[in-house]
Amino acid sequence: MKFISLLLVLALSCTLTAQENQKEIIKKIFDNALTDQSAYQNLKYLCDHAPGRLIGTENSYVAVNYMKEYLETLELDTVFLQSFESPAWICESASAKIIFNKQEINLNVDALGPSISTDRYGLTASVIEVSSLDEIKALSEENVKGKIVFFNGRVNPTTINTFRAYGAAVGQRYSGPEEAAKKGALGVIVRSVNSKLDDFPHTGSCNQFNYRIPAMAVSTNDAELLSEKLKMEPNLQLQINIQAKDIEVTTFNLIADIRGSEKPDEYIVVSGHIDSWHNTQGAHDDGIGCMQAVDVLRLFKDLKLNNKRTIRVILFMDEELYQSGGNSYAEYTQQNNIKHYFALEADAGGLTPEGFTIDASEALVANIQSIKPLLLPYGIYYTKKGGGGVDIAPLKKFGVPLAGYRTDAQRYFEYHHSANDTFDKVNFREMQLGSGNMASLIYLIDQLDLMDE
Amino acid sequence: MKFISLLLVLALSCTLTAQENQKEIIKKIFDNALTDQSAYQNLKYLCDHAPGRLIGTENSYVAVNYMKEYLETLELDTVFLQSFESPAWICESASAKIIFNKQEINLNVDALGPSISTDRYGLTASVIEVSSLDEIKALSEENVKGKIVFFNGRVNPTTINTFRAYGAAVGQRYSGPEEAAKKGALGVIVRSVNSKLDDFPHTGSCNQFNYRIPAMAVSTNDAELLSEKLKMEPNLQLQINIQAKDIEVTTFNLIADIRGSEKPDEYIVVSGHIDSWHNTQGAHDDGIGCMQAVDVLRLFKDLKLNNKRTIRVILFMDEELYQSGGNSYAEYTQQNNIKHYFALEADAGGLTPEGFTIDASEALVANIQSIKPLLLPYGIYYTKKGGGGVDIAPLKKFGVPLAGYRTDAQRYFEYHHSANDTFDKVNFREMQLGSGNMASLIYLIDQLDLMDE
Repeated sequence: MKFISLLLVLALSCTLTAQENQKEIIKKIFDNALTDQSAYQNLKYLCDHAPGRLIGTENSYVAVNYMKEYLETLELDTVFLQSFESPAWICESASAKIIFNKQEINLNVDALGPSISTDRYGLTASVIEVSSLDEIKALSEENVKGKIVFFNGRVNPTTINTFRAYGAAVGQRYSGPEEAAKKGALGVIVRSVNSKLDDFPHTGSCNQFNYRIPAMAVSTNDAELLSEKLKMEPNLQLQINIQAKDIEVTTFNLIADIRGSEKPDEYIVVSGHIDSWHNTQGAHDDGIGCMQAVDVLRLFKDLKLNNKRTIRVILFMDEELYQSGGNSYAEYTQQNNIKHYFALEADAGGLTPEGFTIDASEALVANIQSIKPLLLPYGIYYTKKGGGGVDIAPLKKFGVPLAGYRTDAQRYFEYHHSANDTFDKVNFREMQLGSGNMASLIYLIDQLDLMDE
Repeated sequence: MKFISLLLVLALSCTLTAQENQKEIIKKIFDNALTDQSAYQNLKYLCDHAPGRLIGTENSYVAVNYMKEYLETLELDTVFLQSFESPAWICESASAKIIFNKQEINLNVDALGPSISTDRYGLTASVIEVSSLDEIKALSEENVKGKIVFFNGRVNPTTINTFRAYGAAVGQRYSGPEEAAKKGALGVIVRSVNSKLDDFPHTGSCNQFNYRIPAMAVSTNDAELLSEKLKMEPNLQLQINIQAKDIEVTTFNLIADIRGSEKPDEYIVVSGHIDSWHNTQGAHDDGIGCMQAVDVLRLFKDLKLNNKRTIRVILFMDEELYQSGGNSYAEYTQQNNIKHYFALEADAGGLTPEGFTIDASEALVANIQSIKPLLLPYGIYYTKKGGGGVDIAPLKKFGVPLAGYRTDAQRYFEYHHSANDTFDKVNFREMQLGSGNMASLIYLIDQLDLMDE
């Protein structure tokens, strides 16, 4: 009996020591993250020198090369480009003006991807305003044919979770062009998915697989203006002009590894996407996610965290337009029979940490919830079932547990996909708390084998 | 037995109905708060038209009058000014330059309150750099006498809670001038309590009750510069110039009530402070707290929330310098035998909500914790023991339970007490989630009698 008690005490004290040890290591991770400037400086470089880095653009290659060179300074085990072919789309210009009574009013607009071009002088037509997809679906062809459809649905400002509000509002942007084209519309102009009234057009992707049509976003202020003018002059003309082209490109996901000491063939992925829309620095979407993911590797290296499994950073290309980077990586891993133990993506803005959402079995979600007390002091107040990320989603079919890093997103959609998403909106501490929490989560998952079923 | 079961079911369903009802009312509060622009517009007005509203300044009266006029439009039961006499301090100018080898380098500085003036041409002396209060205390008088003491202690960037980091660093600003004066220093220059390297001097109060001395803050970038120059040229001269004066003023706390329907003699206070430092719009500190407090009354009025107790908003004067508003209100309530049921202050910035800290007995803290599930969907993830606020603190001696509204403060001290604290740093949604949470807390405390011991 005494012997068993002694064993119990010993086991308990080992557990306590392990926990203390984990706490100390997490403290070290944050001490380093909150004082090291490299991720922040790299983000500044990316925003200043490679804005508008949509797949196929010159700046997309500048961005990949710059980050590759940085990763090479970290003395990791592998840094390489995973190459693939993809369609791409280059936006050259977009403009729009209201014309009535010989007056012209310019609007703040931008092309949706992958809109087709109008002819070089633009396209002029009368406008029909609708506020939802249901409304366009209910309209007869005669009402739509030969017109420009103006989708003016608003984001619901009373939805507390802004990602949910965005999800509920984005349908008119994604599917609106197709629905309008089906009914013979000549073009589409969509209110930006932004609950704030301002002058930034917010672009984004739209479904143009079956029907192609010139499609653009208009700022919320100018959506209000257009709607008001339409009430006064229902027959006003709108002239829209988009110049853009489809191309085929060879491009890259950027990958780097720190080899695991015990199970090098099991990969833990930490990722962001290096592309951004053509109209933005892409600071929060998703320059910051890339920098945080890369900073996780820097932290493992600097602190000699001795990972059992291989930690792999991936900066995915083309999250925004066709998701070809994520799909191509999934194919590549299948061909090479790569086993993933866990994959994390940071693509929900870089404000103050809130939590992790986990796309895995209940048992694995519970495993991650067991470490919550270790992360709560650093701002992670939930770890719950939810989405991983667009680029890692194709790994789900192989049974890989996925997770997404989540931050306070109250202001995020005021930046998202617009020229308002700039480096000066990024706060160093908020950003680095992300690096720290992501590194800590990955450290604990690896050390405690949390993804073992 | 059957009858008892029936009673139990009835009681249970009443409780559920009550909870459903509370949920619905809280939803209504947020639906209103997230769409009403008046608090945001009032804050814009305050920042544009009454910056630098330190006690006794013209703008402090502009601010009080503007808010009084707004409160009068809400058709409350009482709107009045509670008048009191107080010392005040007017800062006219502050500058500093390094002088060596016939070169001059201007520094970004501002006076600490209530610094005395130098003579009109300034004061020139050599500099001794220290990094803490302990260091100045350990120095002999010969080392300090006739010099300007440069306190260059840094904020610890690895402390996650920025209020804690501020608290640990602010001692050199508050007590440094007195300690330096005791040893015969001629003047004091203190590194701004800001963990970011930038060009904003951050002012604040310092203890000048026993020893008075010219004292100023220098931006973090220029603190680095001065320190570097001192290493190269230990005998460089620093010229500092402060023009300021002490005055006596009659000023006001602004108070407004919605009378309670059942217990009108029990007051629930919701408050912020209307003064700001001389160098700033005071958007986050504490224009936003004032607007949120006032918005609580607007919400009660608009939604006809039928408060049992009297809800009182107080916009306190002079939180920053002498806390004369808070002290004067406490005296006033004692003289008039006013009973407070609860008092809440919003003075910790206006970013995304985090929680409430409660300065009351364990039992009352537990009562507030019981409503956490109702507020969690709106971002309140803690309600815990902690400070109320500087202005309501004098009510503690009467046994009043106090609370402070807390928000994400990672970037707050980059704004605090500096010209960087401007309206454009305020986000509408983040601000209004504060109004909603404060109104909800007060609604629940009143309806559920949560402060009954």
